[in-house]
Amino acid sequence: MIYGGIEAGGTKFVCAVADDQGRIQARTQFPTQAPQPTLAQAIDFFRGFPGLAAVGIASFGPISLTEGRITSTPKPGWQNFAIVDAVKSALDVPVAFDTDVNAAAVGEGKWGAAQGLDTFLYLTVGTGIGGGAVVGGRVIHGLHHPEMGHIRIPHNGVFRGVCPYHEDCLEGLASGKAIEIRFNGAQPPEDYWDEEARLLALGLVNWICTLSPQLIIMGGGVMKKEGLFPKIRIKVAQFINNYVPIPKIVPPELGDDAGVLGAVTQALDGLR
Amino acid sequence: MIYGGIEAGGTKFVCAVADDQGRIQARTQFPTQAPQPTLAQAIDFFRGFPGLAAVGIASFGPISLTEGRITSTPKPGWQNFAIVDAVKSALDVPVAFDTDVNAAAVGEGKWGAAQGLDTFLYLTVGTGIGGGAVVGGRVIHGLHHPEMGHIRIPHNGVFRGVCPYHEDCLEGLASGKAIEIRFNGAQPPEDYWDEEARLLALGLVNWICTLSPQLIIMGGGVMKKEGLFPKIRIKVAQFINNYVPIPKIVPPELGDDAGVLGAVTQALDGLR
Repeated sequence: MIYGGIEAGGTKFVCAVADDQGRIQARTQFPTQAPQPTLAQAIDFFRGFPGLAAVGIASFGPISLTEGRITSTPKPGWQNFAIVDAVKSALDVPVAFDTDVNAAAVGEGKWGAAQGLDTFLYLTVGTGIGGGAVVGGRVIHGLHHPEMGHIRIPHNGVFRGVCPYHEDCLEGLASGKAIEIRFNGAQPPEDYWDEEARLLALGLVNWICTLSPQLIIMGGGVMKKEGLFPKIRIKVAQFINNYVPIPKIVPPELGDDAGVLGAVTQALDGLR
Repeated sequence: MIYGGIEAGGTKFVCAVADDQGRIQARTQFPTQAPQPTLAQAIDFFRGFPGLAAVGIASFGPISLTEGRITSTPKPGWQNFAIVDAVKSALDVPVAFDTDVNAAAVGEGKWGAAQGLDTFLYLTVGTGIGGGAVVGGRVIHGLHHPEMGHIRIPHNGVFRGVCPYHEDCLEGLASGKAIEIRFNGAQPPEDYWDEEARLLALGLVNWICTLSPQLIIMGGGVMKKEGLFPKIRIKVAQFINNYVPIPKIVPPELGDDAGVLGAVTQALDGLR
């Protein structure tokens, strides 16, 4: 039996099949275009694996978990797209569905850096900023699903932020997109990374105070900047000021496969 | 069989005994003084009930759940006080222990406004600001316990904040203590309450984006200010700007008994 995972990202789709130990048997990725051609590529890939038992989709958001749709995304063509039905009807297998970051958190908990922990946070700092958290062994869903990148933090107002909904939320200030706009597509100056660390650390402080995670995992393209992790750890310690214990802050063990392996995990867990 | 609850607050202790339906049979309260005389009063109260099966303690924090202690409080005499041992050895019953706000969340989930929900938030805005959350049916513990009042939010810097650890965290800016210091003990002017609502709404936005609660319950002395709830609800809607659904924001159904009934609930659940 093999299990499929789709990481449906804003810029690329990653599809993989893996066994029940999370070992990837095959993997493909391609740019995210309009829904129909993009889904057609994913479905073609999975049709190559007749033993496919279930598929998990780890999607950019916001999504409706109950309706299996992507909802209010600014991405052209994807508003209200019923991605779960599209995959289910094409492949005729059970389909699990969650946000990309919830899935990545589940994946890191099952096969990665957070094995054995019951309360931890997975963050991605890429084009956008998102977070998925496992609390007491369960991923947070609640009324909707977390949209952690949209928290508000203090900032000096020099840069106003770029979030179309909130302007100066954390994603609006510190995401890859924000950095790109702030510096007109050029590389930010080296001293900018202290500011980036400061903004991200303020977000982490808020999540530490709210979730009390045993571990924080930070992935995504922005986090690949050399030296950024140590800067963030120092600033978190300064802001917390010995008030509460600080968890380790580490990169994902599953690297760029956290999302797609998380989707596989949710497909697997959904069948049980 | 009856169950005891202690709400160990920074200014007062509330003790109650209740049956397994959460009906309070007897209740007392007295000012929080030094640990020994305060605990002696609590223990005297419970000795009046020979059928006592267990006691729950809902304590001001920070606390060590594993060691049963209050830890780094600025409150004289209470640093590192082993409150669980003190109660257990005097009464010889099992003792459950959690933060006051975690207990209040559990109490509102069992007997109050959050019955039937699995993911919700209880906040108190009193002398300090604290939050307890139930996620997927379980109260958040994690590495330590949440200290939600210490999140950082944007503010205009007119008032610098009073938290001895963080200065301008939410508690430092918007707690009853902060209001008292800001206005030198006088009643704040009526137009201050828009600012208070704004600060609290920014906190709520961060918790909505992080926890996606189905309900937010706000208790504590500051929340008794007439008209504050509607102001907060309006500002939360403005800040969220239709990005994600907003939960109802309501007062506790258990009123001032949320903490002590939560302690009773944890005593009861601890025995099961």
